[in-house]
Amino acid sequence: MSFTTLDTFQAILARAPQANAQSLADAQARNALLTKPAGSLGRLEDIAVWYASWRQNARPKIEAPQVIVFAGNHGVTAQGVSAFPPEVTVQMVANFEQGGAAINQLSRNAGASLSVYALELDRPTHDFTDQPAMSEQDCVAALLVGWNAVSEASDLLVVGEMGIGNTTPAAAICNALFGGTAADWTGRGTGVDDAAFQIKQDVVAKGVAKYADRNALHVLAALGGRELAAMAGAIARARVLRIPVVLDGFICCAAAATLEKAQTGALDHCLAGHASAESGHARLLTSLGKDALLDFGLRLGEGSGAALAIPLIKAAVACHSDMASFAEAGVSEV
Amino acid sequence: MSFTTLDTFQAILARAPQANAQSLADAQARNALLTKPAGSLGRLEDIAVWYASWRQNARPKIEAPQVIVFAGNHGVTAQGVSAFPPEVTVQMVANFEQGGAAINQLSRNAGASLSVYALELDRPTHDFTDQPAMSEQDCVAALLVGWNAVSEASDLLVVGEMGIGNTTPAAAICNALFGGTAADWTGRGTGVDDAAFQIKQDVVAKGVAKYADRNALHVLAALGGRELAAMAGAIARARVLRIPVVLDGFICCAAAATLEKAQTGALDHCLAGHASAESGHARLLTSLGKDALLDFGLRLGEGSGAALAIPLIKAAVACHSDMASFAEAGVSEV
Repeated sequence: MSFTTLDTFQAILARAPQANAQSLADAQARNALLTKPAGSLGRLEDIAVWYASWRQNARPKIEAPQVIVFAGNHGVTAQGVSAFPPEVTVQMVANFEQGGAAINQLSRNAGASLSVYALELDRPTHDFTDQPAMSEQDCVAALLVGWNAVSEASDLLVVGEMGIGNTTPAAAICNALFGGTAADWTGRGTGVDDAAFQIKQDVVAKGVAKYADRNALHVLAALGGRELAAMAGAIARARVLRIPVVLDGFICCAAAATLEKAQTGALDHCLAGHASAESGHARLLTSLGKDALLDFGLRLGEGSGAALAIPLIKAAVACHSDMASFAEAGVSEV
Repeated sequence: MSFTTLDTFQAILARAPQANAQSLADAQARNALLTKPAGSLGRLEDIAVWYASWRQNARPKIEAPQVIVFAGNHGVTAQGVSAFPPEVTVQMVANFEQGGAAINQLSRNAGASLSVYALELDRPTHDFTDQPAMSEQDCVAALLVGWNAVSEASDLLVVGEMGIGNTTPAAAICNALFGGTAADWTGRGTGVDDAAFQIKQDVVAKGVAKYADRNALHVLAALGGRELAAMAGAIARARVLRIPVVLDGFICCAAAATLEKAQTGALDHCLAGHASAESGHARLLTSLGKDALLDFGLRLGEGSGAALAIPLIKAAVACHSDMASFAEAGVSEV
């Protein structure tokens, strides 16, 4: 299965698999037998049952979590929307490859593999205040990088990003998809000053004025960036492969939101790993109907908040699949 | 160092070590050099610096987390304060030993060792509505079990408990230490019905009326239980050994609160792992000035919520100690 246009990609979303109702019921039945007061593991129980329903296995394991970081550069940085210069994108890719970034430590801590894809860093997207950031062909190519990056052997996926300036396209996508004002969705990213913050809002408003009437995947092309499209492609591929996904912060969720807007329910296989300190993220999670697992005030990107949450999901599944039942343990029930 | 009375135990609390200010400053300085926007790892940065200050090492590791579960039985269960019969305590100890309980899975998930101490399960504490739950001698013996259970090689400690009926002594301790009414501190534990819930509040009120005027460690003896005293002993020993502690839910925090009331600052080496669904826990965390890492609605005990949080603390320390600096990675700064 693959695609060559945004329409054929959308058609894949439309016929993507759903959670397995029988596995869901079987997992709920198993949960009720385990040696604990009913409901006493709280959200861990919900996570385990949800995970089982996607894996079509009432007693699943998580043995191969995969973290993928996509990197891209953005023409819109010429407008002065970021505190860091654009060359930091390629420098941080080297840092990922040498094991020195936060996501390296967080992936290792979670027992997850980590791979990094740099998407044409020497060919930034167009400045979307001037013309669409990507042609349809460029966007499809980036979606395919993400699509092909997901391992069929993975059993939990995190997608992260690196791209100086990319809270600007993320804010523009959210504003285009969900309405409101540029100020509602624009935050300070890595830490811009007041002047740059005002420029950033103006840039978002300009882009939204030009492209908000397009459908969701064309919004991704016009206002997004290669790493955002790659994240969307990977999340869609995970759905086809029945691999649950942990969403990261604002940029990841903005990319994911284009899938949900293109096909309602397209993110049913996704949990929100954390609530980012980037100001638009809380609103975005509400728009997506997702309740974050963690609220640690992270605003780094790279997939960091989602990778931090992997051990929580592993914990949920470990309790569910490996605990003894009352009968097995000889423990009296209520 | 050891103790034979509650007074000599209190004297140990009074001269316990403090966080190391130089290590704190050194860790803050290191944090500022790492390849991320300033503050972008949010709470992970605070945790890492705090951890470093207790370990007296600006670049620490977490390699040997220890989980200890203490089990005790409670005379007050004769009043009908629990949904489960008291024989479940020993049955669950067997389940811990056979690897079938939630805490077994959560400890393994966290890379932590797990040990279990059953404290005279065939000799329940006295019913505190009738006489003090423990004599001073019994309480000291239980404190010493906890004190001696902590490994000097541990670098992070979780203490958990199993004891049918033990939300009742926990509520009584909190009410005695912090005031308010029995209803403020009494929850449904493993899930008592309305009638038992009313009995439970009356039992708490009776105990508090008898013993609330005692000092904190004598409140622990009069209203507590062996597993609560053992938890307090272990938390105190961890302080002496400079081992940071992750507090679990309501019962663990009630035991810990006796230390804080006996000696202000006695819990400075402790983080709150999670906010329990047991109704008194939020109030107790506020009273202790602790902000929980997780809010997953757990209400199981066993150390489960704290063990669930271990990977988050490992993640914080891994980022802090293993990330590259801007200079090392050749990444441009703002």
